[in-house]
Amino acid sequence: MSDIKLRVALLGAGRIGQEHCRTLIADPRIQVVAVCDPRLEAARQTAATLPGATATDESREILSSSEVDAIIICTPTDSHAQLIEEGARAHKAVFCEKPVALDLQRTKQALKVVEESGVPFQIGFQRRFDSGYAEARKRIARGLLGRIDQFRAVGRDPGPPSKEYLAKSGGLFLDQAIHEFDLARFLVGEVQSVFAVGVVRFSDDAADLGDVDTATTILHFENGALGVIENSRRAVYGYDIVTEVFGEAGKLVVQAERKTPLRFFREGGSEQDHHHFFMDRFRDAFRAELEAFFTAVLERTMPSPGAADALGALRIGLAATQSQKLGRMVKLAEID
Amino acid sequence: MSDIKLRVALLGAGRIGQEHCRTLIADPRIQVVAVCDPRLEAARQTAATLPGATATDESREILSSSEVDAIIICTPTDSHAQLIEEGARAHKAVFCEKPVALDLQRTKQALKVVEESGVPFQIGFQRRFDSGYAEARKRIARGLLGRIDQFRAVGRDPGPPSKEYLAKSGGLFLDQAIHEFDLARFLVGEVQSVFAVGVVRFSDDAADLGDVDTATTILHFENGALGVIENSRRAVYGYDIVTEVFGEAGKLVVQAERKTPLRFFREGGSEQDHHHFFMDRFRDAFRAELEAFFTAVLERTMPSPGAADALGALRIGLAATQSQKLGRMVKLAEID
Amino acid sequence: MSDIKLRVALLGAGRIGQEHCRTLIADPRIQVVAVCDPRLEAARQTAATLPGATATDESREILSSSEVDAIIICTPTDSHAQLIEEGARAHKAVFCEKPVALDLQRTKQALKVVEESGVPFQIGFQRRFDSGYAEARKRIARGLLGRIDQFRAVGRDPGPPSKEYLAKSGGLFLDQAIHEFDLARFLVGEVQSVFAVGVVRFSDDAADLGDVDTATTILHFENGALGVIENSRRAVYGYDIVTEVFGEAGKLVVQAERKTPLRFFREGGSEQDHHHFFMDRFRDAFRAELEAFFTAVLERTMPSPGAADALGALRIGLAATQSQKLGRMVKLAEID
Amino acid sequence: MSDIKLRVALLGAGRIGQEHCRTLIADPRIQVVAVCDPRLEAARQTAATLPGATATDESREILSSSEVDAIIICTPTDSHAQLIEEGARAHKAVFCEKPVALDLQRTKQALKVVEESGVPFQIGFQRRFDSGYAEARKRIARGLLGRIDQFRAVGRDPGPPSKEYLAKSGGLFLDQAIHEFDLARFLVGEVQSVFAVGVVRFSDDAADLGDVDTATTILHFENGALGVIENSRRAVYGYDIVTEVFGEAGKLVVQAERKTPLRFFREGGSEQDHHHFFMDRFRDAFRAELEAFFTAVLERTMPSPGAADALGALRIGLAATQSQKLGRMVKLAEID
Repeated sequence: MSDIKLRVALLGAGRIGQEHCRTLIADPRIQVVAVCDPRLEAARQTAATLPGATATDESREILSSSEVDAIIICTPTDSHAQLIEEGARAHKAVFCEKPVALDLQRTKQALKVVEESGVPFQIGFQRRFDSGYAEARKRIARGLLGRIDQFRAVGRDPGPPSKEYLAKSGGLFLDQAIHEFDLARFLVGEVQSVFAVGVVRFSDDAADLGDVDTATTILHFENGALGVIENSRRAVYGYDIVTEVFGEAGKLVVQAERKTPLRFFREGGSEQDHHHFFMDRFRDAFRAELEAFFTAVLERTMPSPGAADALGALRIGLAATQSQKLGRMVKLAEID
Repeated sequence: MSDIKLRVALLGAGRIGQEHCRTLIADPRIQVVAVCDPRLEAARQTAATLPGATATDESREILSSSEVDAIIICTPTDSHAQLIEEGARAHKAVFCEKPVALDLQRTKQALKVVEESGVPFQIGFQRRFDSGYAEARKRIARGLLGRIDQFRAVGRDPGPPSKEYLAKSGGLFLDQAIHEFDLARFLVGEVQSVFAVGVVRFSDDAADLGDVDTATTILHFENGALGVIENSRRAVYGYDIVTEVFGEAGKLVVQAERKTPLRFFREGGSEQDHHHFFMDRFRDAFRAELEAFFTAVLERTMPSPGAADALGALRIGLAATQSQKLGRMVKLAEID
Repeated sequence: MSDIKLRVALLGAGRIGQEHCRTLIADPRIQVVAVCDPRLEAARQTAATLPGATATDESREILSSSEVDAIIICTPTDSHAQLIEEGARAHKAVFCEKPVALDLQRTKQALKVVEESGVPFQIGFQRRFDSGYAEARKRIARGLLGRIDQFRAVGRDPGPPSKEYLAKSGGLFLDQAIHEFDLARFLVGEVQSVFAVGVVRFSDDAADLGDVDTATTILHFENGALGVIENSRRAVYGYDIVTEVFGEAGKLVVQAERKTPLRFFREGGSEQDHHHFFMDRFRDAFRAELEAFFTAVLERTMPSPGAADALGALRIGLAATQSQKLGRMVKLAEID
Repeated sequence: MSDIKLRVALLGAGRIGQEHCRTLIADPRIQVVAVCDPRLEAARQTAATLPGATATDESREILSSSEVDAIIICTPTDSHAQLIEEGARAHKAVFCEKPVALDLQRTKQALKVVEESGVPFQIGFQRRFDSGYAEARKRIARGLLGRIDQFRAVGRDPGPPSKEYLAKSGGLFLDQAIHEFDLARFLVGEVQSVFAVGVVRFSDDAADLGDVDTATTILHFENGALGVIENSRRAVYGYDIVTEVFGEAGKLVVQAERKTPLRFFREGGSEQDHHHFFMDRFRDAFRAELEAFFTAVLERTMPSPGAADALGALRIGLAATQSQKLGRMVKLAEID
């Protein structure tokens, strides 16, 4: 097996973990050596699809093994920070689904360990690897739009998550809007201040938990541009993700109009379908982010998005959460 | 001329006045009897295209004439309120381009005269007559969207007006965003509070005048929905008007993707043109609003949008202007 | 009325005649002096909407009047040729709805009279004045596509005409496809030979009359390009008109995707409406063709499309009709 | 390796073979045991990416091995028929890229061996597995369109293949249009007769070889519907594949408007990219067709498209080739 260059362990055999398997199995540069999940049976089932992988319910084993070069963390959010720290201390390259933690201090602490250890670290903002967003970023970096004046993002899910999930989610701004906050940073730059409003329109669960299900956030960017983000926990037509960057030389719109390349003209007009699930829309991006992580690790370059990006989006999310509660503009400098 | 049912005078022979001529000349129900403009030559040229119309530079003549049933006010903004009052007192039906006035008290005063006189009054929010907006309104009224949760409008002009125009315009929120404020009321309902941010990105004239050229406004509707409006005084690709209403049963998007029904596939992809000028986009709406006014007058029903709509949009514009200056949410109840 | 430069008579107060009134009344360069229709009441009703126009059921009056400069022929097809001849002999400028006649010899005869009289003559292929087709032609003329290799047109009506209409129509190729044949000549050039197939799929009337309701026609152009035209007498979703010109440097597609600038995202996807009636789609073109005719007459240039275009499309239609019957390729040189 | 259910050998390590590797490596149900290519080094390089696979330049080894359950034939066309026969005789399940052979008798002979052996056989018409085409087929089968009246397909490649390739290709109708012929059968049904025209517009190679580079083909379906197919060997804007099925209840259009979900609004209008390469457009379909083959083999159902489909499309291609040469309609019954 001299062609396998990277030995990988998968931590977490849930939905995202299984999705990542499709990439792991197809990438000839890597060998999955272990799958870890506290639910041992889940670990076993997933491992069975990965030739040569063993199953375990004990992450320590993996982290202490000299047979593991990199870990992919797909466990529940509240375990991320600790696994990142342990992985970094054990000198593993670390890929972690977002977020590091919902708490600023915990996040900083974990990322400090990463920094001190010097291990490659990547956070799972997969949209950056979508062909539309990646191309938009490239064109903006080349100056295609000139000075950027306005940013807009929409993020609407087909339906709200369970109450259990919501309760641990950190709220709409930290759980859902965080993807739009990352796109704002990715495409336009650092944010200076935030004004957010949020309301409950349909979710009793959100109401019970003091969360919101519908929100709009204004961003002031450090470069002077304005941004606006609209979120909803439920869109009956499906997963609605649109992003626009407007500048002096034009406007870029990233939007996937339909899922199936088919249009039906029937009495009265025509119709087409819509992406319904985030995985429909971003399957290729999930694959590309892992491939990019492995490439960076193998080529000994720093993966991206990294610690600064994990922290950057979190701070906007915390500022938005606070603004929504206080009813005033909140500066990112206040979030510390 | 027994077939002519309505005798109309046109006040103002500028760009909009001339555009309205296309409608006036083609509507068999009306007879234009006079064109008035302080620039007598302009009045004469316009009258020459309207069989049977005389030209004058004196509006009093028109207002005191028993041969005039209705007036179309297309003069500069600062004369609107007085002409409305004089027309109403002379028992003419009144159509007036927006706004009545930039000042709340002056507007209220003029509209009070209208109310007391009982004359038919229509304000020139022509977008309401665009087939897209009109259909959206109908569907929403029928309950197609169910509960409405979010509203979004974009308004971008191809380029900023002259400094002279800007100086009298009342600022971006009262001059440009007012159209989006009207759409918000038209499609969703009354607004309770407003938060607006505005910046200068490119216009030295705006900076000199203490105005902004780029702005984002958040609306809280009385029914609990959230709205957001993005404006810019300059879009290099043309006139950018998009509106979305998002509700529990779906989303309506009013958007005119291109001007010419032509797409060119060339090396690397495909391209199409874009509406460049508001008249490109809304020519049919300008015609339809006048036809609706004449229909209402002839059928003795109240034209719409009327006084409450003129006032409603103005109050949002004033609240946004104030919010942008104060840096805080402003309630419409404060605007009085 | 010194500004009125052209005195026009409208022959035929049917659907198209009435549609043209909208243009006639709004064009300050012309004065409609008479409306003629064998149904005098129809003539009167139409004349009543045109200030200054008289009504008659006697076309001789109009043709012999020195008060008439131009005639607009919107009568039934079988009267076109004679009216054209009479108009030309009376030195009137002539605009005639297509076709001149369904018979080649009769058409040639009438056009010979036009030629000998030297009067301005325009045939009503209104699509040439649609902004999409006009722009496509301009770009092709400028060489945007380089060598043209393929042409495609679709023509589908929302539903078949009455049996009475069908019986006099000349058949699908002469009545419906003729518009696509004209576009072929307009955008690509002269046609050398034709192969057409036609079938009856749904119309008993077509079957009874020996006509077809569904057809496909291949064109060989003189410049070597290939063309294909698809026609149907019924499309449940509406009026389906699409044209493509494919060349060495790309492809132009003329297509009006929807009627109302509105899209509805609802459970399962999104939907939009469609043009249902040819007047929806080509209203502006009907206006523009008459304006172009008046401009040409007033500026003493030859209007276009003219006699050669009337004849050119007819010959393709006759060749297609023959090919469909013979089951073989027919050269246009055979049609004489 | 008890989870591996199917042992597969890959014959041919060229472009398509390598593309299939992405699927082979990621499908946990299969084990690639061998890669065969007369260029042994190519076989070795490809085998190196497939854990557990050996390399060989001798297909007999593979066909005689009891360790191989199925073969994937991606070799040059002229070896297909023999490999199919040998595979079938050795009781392997056979997946073969199209075509079986360019010659009708050779094709029939090979398919007869397949039939007699009873092995699962699938031909590589991958478009059938594209989500757009698959969904169109499903809807048509459910009766969504009612009676089908017209079929249209466009097939344009970004550029012509090499002269060497062209010389062995069998000509445009058998090499390129064959995909559209298969779609015609897949979506509408059997074809009764064909009329094809073809010209040389740009390719000296095609001219030298007596081939064409631009063609239009009319199809008469057995169910009475009409079809038309346009092909070109070169489209400057990229890979142009559009298919429409028009019926009494509407029209289905399968079309992938752009490659990247990104639109750029710039001075004068907006632009988007286009699929440039067939692999851009059909990558998912290439994966899905192999997965479907493995599923069928494992579930002991007959894979589809199979022998009848390989033969059906070939016969249309041969009829079109003959029609283009003879200048007349050719019945499929003549092709035997």
